[in-house]
Amino acid sequence: MQLIKGSEVAAKVLAECQQDIAALAALGHKPGLAVVLVGDDPASRAYVRSKDKKCRDLGLHSVKLELPAETTQEELLAHIAALNADPAVHGILVQSPPPKHIDESAVVLAIDPRKDVDGFHPVNVAKLALEDSSGFVPCTPAGCQRLLLDAGVETSGAKVVVLGRSMIVGKPMALLLMAKGKGGDATVTVAHSRTKNLAEVTREADIIIAAIGRPNFVRAEHVKEGVVIIDVGINRVEDPGSEKGYKIVGDVAFDEVAPKCRAITPVPGGVGPMTIAMLMANTIKACKQLVGA
Amino acid sequence: MQLIKGSEVAAKVLAECQQDIAALAALGHKPGLAVVLVGDDPASRAYVRSKDKKCRDLGLHSVKLELPAETTQEELLAHIAALNADPAVHGILVQSPPPKHIDESAVVLAIDPRKDVDGFHPVNVAKLALEDSSGFVPCTPAGCQRLLLDAGVETSGAKVVVLGRSMIVGKPMALLLMAKGKGGDATVTVAHSRTKNLAEVTREADIIIAAIGRPNFVRAEHVKEGVVIIDVGINRVEDPGSEKGYKIVGDVAFDEVAPKCRAITPVPGGVGPMTIAMLMANTIKACKQLVGA
Repeated sequence: MQLIKGSEVAAKVLAECQQDIAALAALGHKPGLAVVLVGDDPASRAYVRSKDKKCRDLGLHSVKLELPAETTQEELLAHIAALNADPAVHGILVQSPPPKHIDESAVVLAIDPRKDVDGFHPVNVAKLALEDSSGFVPCTPAGCQRLLLDAGVETSGAKVVVLGRSMIVGKPMALLLMAKGKGGDATVTVAHSRTKNLAEVTREADIIIAAIGRPNFVRAEHVKEGVVIIDVGINRVEDPGSEKGYKIVGDVAFDEVAPKCRAITPVPGGVGPMTIAMLMANTIKACKQLVGA
Repeated sequence: MQLIKGSEVAAKVLAECQQDIAALAALGHKPGLAVVLVGDDPASRAYVRSKDKKCRDLGLHSVKLELPAETTQEELLAHIAALNADPAVHGILVQSPPPKHIDESAVVLAIDPRKDVDGFHPVNVAKLALEDSSGFVPCTPAGCQRLLLDAGVETSGAKVVVLGRSMIVGKPMALLLMAKGKGGDATVTVAHSRTKNLAEVTREADIIIAAIGRPNFVRAEHVKEGVVIIDVGINRVEDPGSEKGYKIVGDVAFDEVAPKCRAITPVPGGVGPMTIAMLMANTIKACKQLVGA
């Protein structure tokens, strides 16, 4: 069984980013990412800090905009307009979820698609469906695809089951894997809460992408021998014995499933580190496209 | 075995359109469709004529723009801009394929997404992926879904195999069928030329949507007893005995497959008539949205 170490692949992606950053620097450009946080949700704040830190570590220009929970929709849109117009900013990300009085889809639409490094703007959603590589692919599915490529897993002709049909992971993942070319050409099935006889469906899979957000949901009986599993789940479960009182587990019951796998990602240390690495890669791509480098 | 008669369902859709047209007329509105043809490909010309005729039969405002093959990209875009600005036109369709010197994707982008009754503009592609019902779904997959609904075929939890991954049929069909709600919630697999052991994959299907454009490709060994099949194929094959010298067949070898089916569409008379009916329905939807009715 091969453990697909996301942290190691993420380090590779970041090393590639550093080369690109050096090349851009030689041309007088410095990629910039703006991360916007509205409110003071502790988990969101931690995400924003880690993105900001990763930018600084890489030598990217980082703008961290922490706005109070009372920020109005109008004020937030004005901030986004300013970031759209800021030539030092090539990527813009508004940390999700915003407070309830904010219309998240209006916020996504307000971001210049050329700076939409999250890949959630309709222009980028469409580019993914249309196999137009100038768009931005959402970071998590892009990271999953990169993990498969890096682990030498052939997707062409492979039967892939994507568990979950969200627009953040499931659907873009399916579109990526069914697209023509390297890392694609798979026979993709999207399964979800309405799927009947799920274990029958998943047991057919050569590759499973688990993105349903239910701790330890995928069990040994769901998979065949020799399957490759990418576990997108990041679920907090109680762990009374630990210092924090909780631990993070994936959507896959790792201990019982891993022995049947040809390869599997751990949680933590699998998809998680890839998401932020792909965000950096998307920011550099945005910079290159905007400056014409 | 139930024969799903597309002509009859299309007549129902058109009857619904007539009710909508009467309601709009009472408010002083008349839906209008502009069909643009560049060049003189006989098949394209026939399609354009039948669309124009259907509009006139229904009492829609119809604009038929037949442009010479030498029309430049710039001239075509100017015509589209004029149609975008024309308040009597609510739907715009440029017959595909245009001559080779025309950049088709630029043409699609030039159409106001609110008038994009073909559903090919990125805004509408994204709305489909995002399950935003204000967008336009491409006519053929929309027609296939309507056929399933009308035939009383439950899609929720059903295993559907979509054969083909084009942006005209395969992908939008998959997105429609995996979306939440009526006519959706299916477990969808997209199979294509790179799929291995195709018959194994299709034999699992409760519902097959065949959209690969290969005459009589789906054979008895590809399907299980009790399957429902929607045959999107419209293939011309030689038929020396006939007056025309050819006949139209689907992607499914009807004679050998039909006896195993719970329900199946014929070719011709299946999906074909639905496509044009859904175009009329999309035009009326566009009119309603544009006039705020």
